[in-house]
Amino acid sequence: MEENIIRHDYSVNRQDRRANLGQNSFLMWFTGLSGSGKSTIANALEHKLHELGYKTYALDGDNIRKGINKGLTFSPEDRTENIRRIAEVANLLVDSGIIVLAAFVSPYKKDRENIRGIVGNDNFVEIFVNTSLEECERRDVKGLYKKARAGEIKDFTGVNAPYEAPESPDIEIITDDLSLEQCVEAVFEKIKPKLEI
Amino acid sequence: MEENIIRHDYSVNRQDRRANLGQNSFLMWFTGLSGSGKSTIANALEHKLHELGYKTYALDGDNIRKGINKGLTFSPEDRTENIRRIAEVANLLVDSGIIVLAAFVSPYKKDRENIRGIVGNDNFVEIFVNTSLEECERRDVKGLYKKARAGEIKDFTGVNAPYEAPESPDIEIITDDLSLEQCVEAVFEKIKPKLEI
Repeated sequence: MEENIIRHDYSVNRQDRRANLGQNSFLMWFTGLSGSGKSTIANALEHKLHELGYKTYALDGDNIRKGINKGLTFSPEDRTENIRRIAEVANLLVDSGIIVLAAFVSPYKKDRENIRGIVGNDNFVEIFVNTSLEECERRDVKGLYKKARAGEIKDFTGVNAPYEAPESPDIEIITDDLSLEQCVEAVFEKIKPKLEI
Repeated sequence: MEENIIRHDYSVNRQDRRANLGQNSFLMWFTGLSGSGKSTIANALEHKLHELGYKTYALDGDNIRKGINKGLTFSPEDRTENIRRIAEVANLLVDSGIIVLAAFVSPYKKDRENIRGIVGNDNFVEIFVNTSLEECERRDVKGLYKKARAGEIKDFTGVNAPYEAPESPDIEIITDDLSLEQCVEAVFEKIKPKLEI
């Protein structure tokens, strides 16, 4: 069989896959405090892109924590490994031609820079979902801030673990006075030029 | 913003993505000895599927070892974790609607059963690339068998680490007397019914 190996080039590369899918592929990374609205915006944007025919995938705690990152804790070291693995997964999805939306607190600057290094600058869009701690705590959709303040959750970002806000994100959404639709439109307008090959 | 969260369902699920891509998605897992031809067959099959317009992605040592599985060794424990992570990545790609081809020695039965558990029985096609040890060693494309016999590589499957052959693979290809094209056709004919939604 090995004779054939030499005769043909059977490789399918990233450009071939993007052409086959009829789109460019890249990673949109939503960072922000717990309750900032990053997953909600990412999901609604994915829905909009999907309706427009784009091929998308959303990574979030639900499909990551129970799967590839099972067993990792919220310690600084494990948070770093958590983000590294998500970035590697995103990189493979981008390589497959898929537009990826990822929504994770990702509080450390160096971890987010690591993502940029893994997927490549051209394929990385950092989106800072900037909702004030006060507003996140006021909403407290999952009751986590209350628990963190009561000392029931350790290493909770914004309460007893740091959040290092992006200094120059590709996109920044100050959600406090915007509707979900406005947030989604704001991101969509910025990424529109990146969608086509 | 939270009012909107309640009003709309923005989730895009696996069936939506498959419909958008116009195909079914699943994982083809190629197992076999080093040098058995599994990567070559997987790559040639990916090329064929790609030419037919299917949206595919191939996982192999090149894009896995340097990325998501960086730092893992060839010890039994790390081999198990290696395969588990590949299966989790494959599961996310399948969830995104992509047809995945993975080529890894994956010598342990329990690890391959674990893959089936992770991606689900309906989404898993186990392909045993059955090339005899003698034939793999005769080819020795990368010179690894020679090194293993000389004791320069520890834990080399077939030489100083076990290979547990599948007892009832979904597809078995005995490559010794087949051309690459025949191997690819044999797999293609078997998976054809699975390609459409």
